[in-house]
Amino acid sequence: MLVVQKYGGSSVANPERIKRVAARIVETKLQGHNVVVVVSAMGDTTDDLIDLMKQIAENPSEREMDMLLSTGEQISVALLAMAIESLGEKAVSLTGAQVGVVTDNVHTKAKIIDVHTERMKAELKTGNIVVVAGFQGISMDNDITTLGRGGSDTSAVALAAVLRAGLCEIFTDVDGVYTADPRIVPEARKLDIISFDEMLELSHLGAGVLHPRSVELAKKYKVPLHVRSSFNNHQGTVLKEVEEMEGINVVTGVAHDYNVAIVGIFDVPDEPGIAMKIFNALSDANINVDVIVQSAMRNNINDIAFTVTKDELMKTLQVVKDSQEKVGYKEYSCDDKVAKVSIVGAGMASYYGVAARMFEALAEENINIEMITTSDIKVSCIISSDDTEKAVRALHRKFELGAV
Amino acid sequence: MLVVQKYGGSSVANPERIKRVAARIVETKLQGHNVVVVVSAMGDTTDDLIDLMKQIAENPSEREMDMLLSTGEQISVALLAMAIESLGEKAVSLTGAQVGVVTDNVHTKAKIIDVHTERMKAELKTGNIVVVAGFQGISMDNDITTLGRGGSDTSAVALAAVLRAGLCEIFTDVDGVYTADPRIVPEARKLDIISFDEMLELSHLGAGVLHPRSVELAKKYKVPLHVRSSFNNHQGTVLKEVEEMEGINVVTGVAHDYNVAIVGIFDVPDEPGIAMKIFNALSDANINVDVIVQSAMRNNINDIAFTVTKDELMKTLQVVKDSQEKVGYKEYSCDDKVAKVSIVGAGMASYYGVAARMFEALAEENINIEMITTSDIKVSCIISSDDTEKAVRALHRKFELGAV
Repeated sequence: MLVVQKYGGSSVANPERIKRVAARIVETKLQGHNVVVVVSAMGDTTDDLIDLMKQIAENPSEREMDMLLSTGEQISVALLAMAIESLGEKAVSLTGAQVGVVTDNVHTKAKIIDVHTERMKAELKTGNIVVVAGFQGISMDNDITTLGRGGSDTSAVALAAVLRAGLCEIFTDVDGVYTADPRIVPEARKLDIISFDEMLELSHLGAGVLHPRSVELAKKYKVPLHVRSSFNNHQGTVLKEVEEMEGINVVTGVAHDYNVAIVGIFDVPDEPGIAMKIFNALSDANINVDVIVQSAMRNNINDIAFTVTKDELMKTLQVVKDSQEKVGYKEYSCDDKVAKVSIVGAGMASYYGVAARMFEALAEENINIEMITTSDIKVSCIISSDDTEKAVRALHRKFELGAV
Repeated sequence: MLVVQKYGGSSVANPERIKRVAARIVETKLQGHNVVVVVSAMGDTTDDLIDLMKQIAENPSEREMDMLLSTGEQISVALLAMAIESLGEKAVSLTGAQVGVVTDNVHTKAKIIDVHTERMKAELKTGNIVVVAGFQGISMDNDITTLGRGGSDTSAVALAAVLRAGLCEIFTDVDGVYTADPRIVPEARKLDIISFDEMLELSHLGAGVLHPRSVELAKKYKVPLHVRSSFNNHQGTVLKEVEEMEGINVVTGVAHDYNVAIVGIFDVPDEPGIAMKIFNALSDANINVDVIVQSAMRNNINDIAFTVTKDELMKTLQVVKDSQEKVGYKEYSCDDKVAKVSIVGAGMASYYGVAARMFEALAEENINIEMITTSDIKVSCIISSDDTEKAVRALHRKFELGAV
């Protein structure tokens, strides 16, 4: 069988851990499998590079940031290949460019367009364990790109998809996917199984175990995904299609995300299409808007509020300022002392009153809801960030997620 | 005019220095020139990476070493491009692979086969300052290679050659080429001009300012080369063909090199061709042998001694051991407590007695000569490394190099 394994930054944070990961990879190989490994940058490398960068330029171009940050994974793949070789197995490290992970040219959050398989297949054929730099690709213009947050997960799933791997194991520093963050909710339970859709919502909503793009890809290409710990041999969480699952949960888990900021623009003329101009401008700047609330306060005048990630707040405010004339709003504001709490469950659509029970749980704790957004399988509320832990615990209790 | 500038590791050792180098580059650009910059890895980066590597593998494969070490230059080009951009000029960084510096596949000391110019020319045409990672290339198999010691000099000269640059400036931490190492000989004089051939010998003999391969390339493609300090604006040393020079020195400079080790093999059967077997084996292992001395001590039995660089002593001894049966020698020995001192001068060939004066100078200081090798424009002696400084000073005095 062909197994794709992905190891995150904390799993390869130092030489000792790299050697331990190498041993685990060799073990898999000796079980008779072909192994392709995707690796992130070592623990602090990226932060160190960003520190250096900040001493040189306040607002460096994203192309050069990718050039800089992609070295992190190149270092870890080379070291991991050396560690594997010194255990007596053959290994070869490859950059995103060498594999042929072709992306668009949206630097710092490029999307994968195509993944070539020739080089990987040739290396596997000669008996090599193939160690691929995650998080990175190469654009059509031959420029180095990075895939943004959680990019290595996406790399791993994309490789598993094109290589038709029998298994894609995502090794991380927790035992799997939990009903809530165990650091906040001690009685949180590890899920043995979760649907792609639920995982997708959870990861969108801030559960950091897997990046949403990787889950999307896995769902689309039916990649058998197993999220597990790199520090032990416990069974982790297996991702499945809902129809393959025995029972469906009304609520599977509670997620929270501190990486949220609200931007408000006030006194926007209520003409058709004018509100869209701000979102077009944000989209042109590659900024993702999450929740949007529009309220007609007075005649012909709107207030609009929306959320973006905290990381992109500065960039967002710049775009908002630059489009004042075009959009014709009077004032803007922002608030980054907020968070998002969400409940997720594939069975939610068939039950009434799930959202109501959520609002009740928050009300019982005197937590104010600033914005609400829902989908078939999730309800999210924007609340004050100070209330986050209290909210997560209350929701976990309300939906009895701790019970086995 | 198109100017190629090369900055070594000490010139970009920290953010402050990178900014200073950026300012210098922008100055050149604002004088109306097109600028291509070649950069080495920041000061200690390479050492840090080697430290990491040693914690992981004792004897890592050279392919993976190249993969690892090439990240050093990628970091410095990205940072330098950012620094240039923040001064308001357009810049783009390129790896060896992106430029298309095509090399053979002899990892850790690859030779350049071809350099593509399309990408660099396209970037120059859009007004970009092009910042190229020195020291690295890409093999026909799409593997990352490094050019070995002094590789960034070679990169710079190769780029200047293919781009037909009007000037190639090698910026370093000294003011130019000196008659001897000023740290050893305080009265050493900076040379305003030196012939390619003299520079070639000097660099082969351990004067660290320029790597011999870069000088060879510059001579072959008539690249106008200027070696100068990155810390001031002084005129440095210009390299010329001998016929373009006004006067020719009998002795131009004194060089010394601690990176030398002697290997001896004893009791080699004196059959035709048998001695060559050891050198063929060393050549197959890509080890450069410098001085060779063969002495017929007794009937049909030879002793052979030769020198290699200290770096390659371990590898050399392995080859020597492995070929004992084939070569049929009885014993071997090695000595790394030696150094090479040399005198170089383009006019040497037309004068008698230059070598004799060198031996006299060493004899006056009671310095024992272990091996001698000569060429048209140099005489080198292998001596005890403890005597090196004394020897260099004596030779500098003997040939009156301090006088203006």
